[in-house]
Amino acid sequence: MSEVLLLSGRVCDTASCRRCSCCQDECAIRHHVGGVLVVRTSVRYGIMSEVLLLSGRVCDTASCRRSSCCQDECAIRHHVGGVLVVRTTVRYGIMSEVLLLSGRVCDTASCRRCSCCQDECAIRHHVGGVLVVRTSVRYGIMSEADSRFSCRGRVILQFMGTSTFSEYTVLNQIAVAKISDDARLDRVCLLGCGISTGYGAAINTAQVTPGSVCAVFGLGAVGLAAVMGCRNAGATRIIAVDINEDKFAKARALGATDFVNPKKHSKPVSEVLSDMTNGGVDFSLECVGNVAVMRSALESCAKGWGVSVVVGWTDMADFSARPIQLIAGKTWKGSLFGGFKSKDSVPKLVLDYKSGKINLDEFVTHNMPLEKVNDAIELMKTGGCIRTILDVLPK
Amino acid sequence: MSEVLLLSGRVCDTASCRRCSCCQDECAIRHHVGGVLVVRTSVRYGIMSEVLLLSGRVCDTASCRRSSCCQDECAIRHHVGGVLVVRTTVRYGIMSEVLLLSGRVCDTASCRRCSCCQDECAIRHHVGGVLVVRTSVRYGIMSEADSRFSCRGRVILQFMGTSTFSEYTVLNQIAVAKISDDARLDRVCLLGCGISTGYGAAINTAQVTPGSVCAVFGLGAVGLAAVMGCRNAGATRIIAVDINEDKFAKARALGATDFVNPKKHSKPVSEVLSDMTNGGVDFSLECVGNVAVMRSALESCAKGWGVSVVVGWTDMADFSARPIQLIAGKTWKGSLFGGFKSKDSVPKLVLDYKSGKINLDEFVTHNMPLEKVNDAIELMKTGGCIRTILDVLPK
Repeated sequence: MSEVLLLSGRVCDTASCRRCSCCQDECAIRHHVGGVLVVRTSVRYGIMSEVLLLSGRVCDTASCRRSSCCQDECAIRHHVGGVLVVRTTVRYGIMSEVLLLSGRVCDTASCRRCSCCQDECAIRHHVGGVLVVRTSVRYGIMSEADSRFSCRGRVILQFMGTSTFSEYTVLNQIAVAKISDDARLDRVCLLGCGISTGYGAAINTAQVTPGSVCAVFGLGAVGLAAVMGCRNAGATRIIAVDINEDKFAKARALGATDFVNPKKHSKPVSEVLSDMTNGGVDFSLECVGNVAVMRSALESCAKGWGVSVVVGWTDMADFSARPIQLIAGKTWKGSLFGGFKSKDSVPKLVLDYKSGKINLDEFVTHNMPLEKVNDAIELMKTGGCIRTILDVLPK
Repeated sequence: MSEVLLLSGRVCDTASCRRCSCCQDECAIRHHVGGVLVVRTSVRYGIMSEVLLLSGRVCDTASCRRSSCCQDECAIRHHVGGVLVVRTTVRYGIMSEVLLLSGRVCDTASCRRCSCCQDECAIRHHVGGVLVVRTSVRYGIMSEADSRFSCRGRVILQFMGTSTFSEYTVLNQIAVAKISDDARLDRVCLLGCGISTGYGAAINTAQVTPGSVCAVFGLGAVGLAAVMGCRNAGATRIIAVDINEDKFAKARALGATDFVNPKKHSKPVSEVLSDMTNGGVDFSLECVGNVAVMRSALESCAKGWGVSVVVGWTDMADFSARPIQLIAGKTWKGSLFGGFKSKDSVPKLVLDYKSGKINLDEFVTHNMPLEKVNDAIELMKTGGCIRTILDVLPK
C-alpha cells in the first residue's frame, strides 16, 4: 500500500499527445457520455500498475478547452489529488518489466532509467526543459485494445492517461508521484497541471531573473500562476494583461504590479507595453492559447534579450511573426507542465505549498461534488471561477 | 593615424534598420546610380569621426539581397577591410561627446558606457546575445540632413552606415575596430558580416554543444560559416542541407558530415532529418532567409531540447509554425552578426584566423577590382561564387 498523489499523467499526454488512440476521436469518456461527464464505468485490471482511487479532488483546466482532442465537454478531466491503494495485480509482470519490454516508454517524471532518456534524451541538454518522449507509449498507457474502462459494454479510453472524473481509475505508475502524507488534497490537486504549468513556465522555462520586468498575458489559473512565478523569481515589475478586469485583483494578490486591458487602448498592446517599459519587457508569458496573443507577447519583448514563452495551448492555427523579431535578439520558447518533471518536482511543490512559498488557496474559488461536474464546466466556460475543486470520493 | 578594420557598422544597421532615413527609399547609393555601383562621389567632412578609406577589400553579402531596402543592385555594399586614416576634424566636438549628447547612441561594439547599455540593456541578460539599440542613432550615422556623400550635386546616404564600395568613405567611429597590423585585409574583410554571422550563430546564439547533432540549411557563405562554427563547437554530426549540391564539397571541407538535397526526397526535409537522427537534430541553423525554410529548420529539431536559429534575413513575410513545436520544448532564436559585439570580437576573430582556428581562405572564390563590381554581383546572383573580394584601392 502506498499513498500517492495522482498526477495528470503528463507523460502520457506528452508521449502520445493528440496522436495516440486515447487522444483521438474516442477521447476518453467523451463519446460515451453524450456530454454528461458523470457516468458509471467498469474498471478492469490489466497489465499496468493498477490503482484504485479511493478519494480525491478534481479541478478544471482552463487552457485545454480549445484543442481538437478536448472540446468543451471533456476539458476538466485530468486533475486529481487522491489517496490511492495500489493493487499489485499486474498480469504481465511488474511495471518496470513492462517498461523494459516496450523499450521506449518514459515520462517527464521517472524515465531516467529507460533507454530513451539515457542515450538520446533531454537530461544532457536542458535541466529545466520538458522531457518529451519521442514515441507512443505502447504499453504504458491504457491502449485501445486493453482499456481499463467500459461503459454500457463499450470499451472507452482514458483522457490524458488518467480520466480522474470517476470514483475509481487505473493508472500507469509513471503518472503517480508520492507526496507528503499530510498534504491537503483539495489544494495540492491543483499541482497536477495548470498551476505547476504557469508557475514553472516563469521559473523554469523563461528563467525570470531578479530585477526583471515581466508581462503575463491572460489571467486564468495558468496566467495567475505565472504571475506568482515571476514574483517568486524576483521580478520587480509584473504587468498583468487581460481583457477581463475582474481578474486584476487576484493578479495583484499574487504579485502583479501593473495592469493593462488591451481593449482600453487604441494602440496594439505590444506598443502599450513598450511605452510603459522604455522598449519592451524582459520576459513575456502567453497564458491564453491564442496565436494572435502569442505574437503580441513576442512583440512586447525587448529587442536584444527578451524571452517570450508560449504557455497556452492551441493546435488550431499557426503562430507567426516577422523574422526581425527573432533576428533582433529575442527568444521564443514553449512550456509544457512548466518544465517540471512530475515525479521529481511535484513532491517538492507540495512542500513549497506547505511552507507558504507558493499560494494555492488563492486559486480555489468553488467546491463541488462530482455530480456537479457539468455545472463546474459551465462556470469555467463563462470565466466565473478560477478553479473549482470536485470531490470524487465514492459515496 | 590608426589602422583599423572597417566593419559593416552593425550598430547603425541595428539601430535604425529599415526605418531610418538612410535605409528607406533613398537607400544609400542605389537611387543615384541607376544600378551602376561604381560612381564618383564627393566625400564631405562633418560631425563624425571621419576616416579616409585609403585601401581595402569589399565582398558581397548573399543574405541581404531579398530585403526591401537592399534590392539586387545594392546587396554587396557593406563589407570592407581597410587601412583608415582618421581625420579628427570633428566639427561639434569629439565623438564621445556627440554620443553623450544623443544619449541613446550605442552599438554592438563599444556601447557599454552609454545610458542605453548600462541601466537597461543586454549585458546583464545575455552574454552571447546581440545588443540591439532601441532608438535611432541621431548623430551617430550619416543622417539625411548631413550626409558625407553626394553625387552630381545630390546628397546620397550610406548603406548600413558604411558604403564601402567607394575609394573613400566617412564612418562613425563605432563602426570601426582595431585589428592586428599584419592582418591580411583581403581575408579578414570577410569578418565584417557574413562569416562572423554564420560562425557566431552556431557558437554564440545556438551555443552548439560538444557531441551534438546539427543541421545547417543553406550553404552560402553564411551557412558554410555556420558549419565551421558547429564543427569548432564540437558537434559530432553536421548535416548540410542545400538544393545546390555543388555546395557540398565546400561544406565537407568546413566540417559537414552528412548531406541532404531536399529535392531528392519525397518527404518533407524535416522528416528526412528526423529519420536520420532518430527524432530530430539538437541544433538547426537557417541560413537562407526563407520563411518556409525557417519552419522546416524548427520542425527538424528534436522535441524537448532542440534549438533552431534564424540567421538568414528577410522582412518580406512572416515565419510561422504550430504552437506544439515550441510547447514540446523547442526554442526559436535569431542571430544578428552572430551575437558578436564587433569592436570586442572582430579583433579576436582576426587572431583566430591567423592561428588557423577559423578558415577564411575557403570562402574566397574570386578576386576583382572595384570597377568589376557589377560582374561580382551577377556572379553572386547566379550562385557562381562563395565570396568575391573587390579591391577598392584608389588608382
